[in-house]
Amino acid sequence: MVTACCCDFMLTKSSSLTRLVGELKKLPGVGERTAIRLAFHLLKAPQNLTALAESLLDVQSKVRACSICFSITEANPCPICSGNRDAGIICVVENSQDLMALERSNAYQGVYHVLEGVISPLSGIGPSELRIAELMKRVDEGAVGEVVIATNFTVEGEATALYLARLLKPLNIRITRLAHGIPLGSDIEYVDAATVQWALQGRNEL
Amino acid sequence: MVTACCCDFMLTKSSSLTRLVGELKKLPGVGERTAIRLAFHLLKAPQNLTALAESLLDVQSKVRACSICFSITEANPCPICSGNRDAGIICVVENSQDLMALERSNAYQGVYHVLEGVISPLSGIGPSELRIAELMKRVDEGAVGEVVIATNFTVEGEATALYLARLLKPLNIRITRLAHGIPLGSDIEYVDAATVQWALQGRNEL
Repeated sequence: MVTACCCDFMLTKSSSLTRLVGELKKLPGVGERTAIRLAFHLLKAPQNLTALAESLLDVQSKVRACSICFSITEANPCPICSGNRDAGIICVVENSQDLMALERSNAYQGVYHVLEGVISPLSGIGPSELRIAELMKRVDEGAVGEVVIATNFTVEGEATALYLARLLKPLNIRITRLAHGIPLGSDIEYVDAATVQWALQGRNEL
Repeated sequence: MVTACCCDFMLTKSSSLTRLVGELKKLPGVGERTAIRLAFHLLKAPQNLTALAESLLDVQSKVRACSICFSITEANPCPICSGNRDAGIICVVENSQDLMALERSNAYQGVYHVLEGVISPLSGIGPSELRIAELMKRVDEGAVGEVVIATNFTVEGEATALYLARLLKPLNIRITRLAHGIPLGSDIEYVDAATVQWALQGRNEL
């Protein structure tokens, strides 16, 4: 009985609080103790609690996937698809977070296509679970000259990039991949061997 | 422009999401990156998002402070105050989390009094900001034989304990404090000197 979970006690004290702790525990990186701490923090600041609840419901009612590129957006089509961007280049990314990282670079003026995941046989995710058919349709229908494949440089991301490259090859368009190399501000001494190998193979004239 | 915050971009993409990230950032231990990660996690699991929003509103509408002991509760008075507990002993704690820790020990059969804080001149919290007047009223009115002071063993907690002890002294009741000593499962080698000193001074006959 001494080892009873604090939620056991809270259940008798306040079942709505127990439910909130349970919901907070579902968040990534939040365990039982953190969830309890967050719940009590919110209890102490009722205006934050209301604002959080309202913004959650607001996000749920307003945010959706863009019907063209599948990035998250409140307007449909999203500001990028409907904006003054070069629709002749499509950058393929795994998710909207990656899209945002590319936008932050301010180095890309084309449009995007969010796959909503990556081919991962271990997780049971095949090409049909991703927005690949929609990408092919966009490339087929539009005047697309280049597809930049910007999936992550993980095993699944590389496999997805290869799969897409093979699918797109017969369409006679330019297919590119983000460059591998030494990250900005890195000390070559501490960069992994595979990255140094890529950087040597992809070296440029000065 | 390259250093623009991702929220700047999100603002144009989705202002409700930006607001949610802002609300999540107010939680303790949650920074910008974590808030964005949590927001996207919730976006991917709409049922969790709804459940979290509902449980937040549920907590807000149902949970309040017990009118007797000021612990958080859905029923008023709380199950401890209205239950079959010894009202002759009041255990004074800083907050409801400490109350829960004491309840988990299953070693206390009396009732509680939550101060809702601790005397802290640096934070501008004096005795009048705490539930000290309400405690004095309970002790004055009821047949209270003992007050167990269970504020934390921090500078503020100890100061509050001393303050309460002086206030309660004239009422001719037993005033006790939780014992200092070596925690269960500790290696004495690694316990701090002050705790070892307390443990020696409070040593018991075997």
